[in-house]
Amino acid sequence: MNETLKVIAERYSCRDFKDTMPPDEVLQAIAEAAVQAPSAMNRQAWRVIVVKDRDLINDIESEAISYIEGMEDKSSYERIKERGGMIFYGAPVLVVVAIDPSHQDYALIDCGIVCQNIAIAAASLGIANVICGYAGRSFDKPASAEEFGKRLGFPEGYIFGCSVLLGYANSTKQPHEPDKNKVSFIE
Amino acid sequence: MNETLKVIAERYSCRDFKDTMPPDEVLQAIAEAAVQAPSAMNRQAWRVIVVKDRDLINDIESEAISYIEGMEDKSSYERIKERGGMIFYGAPVLVVVAIDPSHQDYALIDCGIVCQNIAIAAASLGIANVICGYAGRSFDKPASAEEFGKRLGFPEGYIFGCSVLLGYANSTKQPHEPDKNKVSFIE
Repeated sequence: MNETLKVIAERYSCRDFKDTMPPDEVLQAIAEAAVQAPSAMNRQAWRVIVVKDRDLINDIESEAISYIEGMEDKSSYERIKERGGMIFYGAPVLVVVAIDPSHQDYALIDCGIVCQNIAIAAASLGIANVICGYAGRSFDKPASAEEFGKRLGFPEGYIFGCSVLLGYANSTKQPHEPDKNKVSFIE
Repeated sequence: MNETLKVIAERYSCRDFKDTMPPDEVLQAIAEAAVQAPSAMNRQAWRVIVVKDRDLINDIESEAISYIEGMEDKSSYERIKERGGMIFYGAPVLVVVAIDPSHQDYALIDCGIVCQNIAIAAASLGIANVICGYAGRSFDKPASAEEFGKRLGFPEGYIFGCSVLLGYANSTKQPHEPDKNKVSFIE
């Protein structure tokens, strides 16, 4: 097993971060890995926005939780309450990946590709991380989407795609057990 | 720059493969990296199908090209013709990622995450690769979707998500130039 396979195998979704900011050169290296991601037709129709601003991170988290609390299906809100009423777990950095929705399905697949580059690059540098879709609930009300899109500097027409939280782990955990039944070979 | 960042930075989308099959233990390691991917709510609602069967690969390629040829917008077909009338470029292995579409947007983001784990794991092992969405055109006609879904062993209700071609590079190329203008920091 080489270094990269080891990073992939040992990476886990961190839900407990220290309040310590990673150095800028580390965040730069992660952001650079993000934009090295392949994309359909090499369109690169995404933006990688590294948010260190605590107020902005808090505002996005509050709006998302408030939106989820108001949803008819209470299962997500209950899960969040069990996890201490947080969706960002004290992470000092929120990386938002904004996408061009006109590329439809490819936009979302490409967004996942970028997020995993961020996650793997971070893990290789000792930075705990978790890919976080919940942040998108802050963009579900049109007024909030406009406000946060503006504060995050989304290009015209871009929308929230996904996000990745980064920081140092306060407590670590094991990655999920890979389920080999999900793999098949056709010879 | 560590080994993993180097793999991410140097990985490129290969479009010219040798007709040499990678060893099974290499394909197993790549498939294992695939199912180590994180997923929304840890649902792991995907299947990783490693196809080495030349006839099946050829049939999927032919159906996709024939579908694309019939599309009103001729730009994809023209691009394929320029590339020698292929979409699989002689790759000996096609990895199909099937997904549960009931998870909507998350299914596609999760699919992208799996594909990038495959691509990075492959690159780390010296296996050339390209993420290929075109294969999905073989599933656009309901009858073809049923036929190929059956031949690939999709679970009930699963659909084509994306695919990754694997093999040894016959000719290499440079990765795309990362566009640092797509990155911003909010302090």
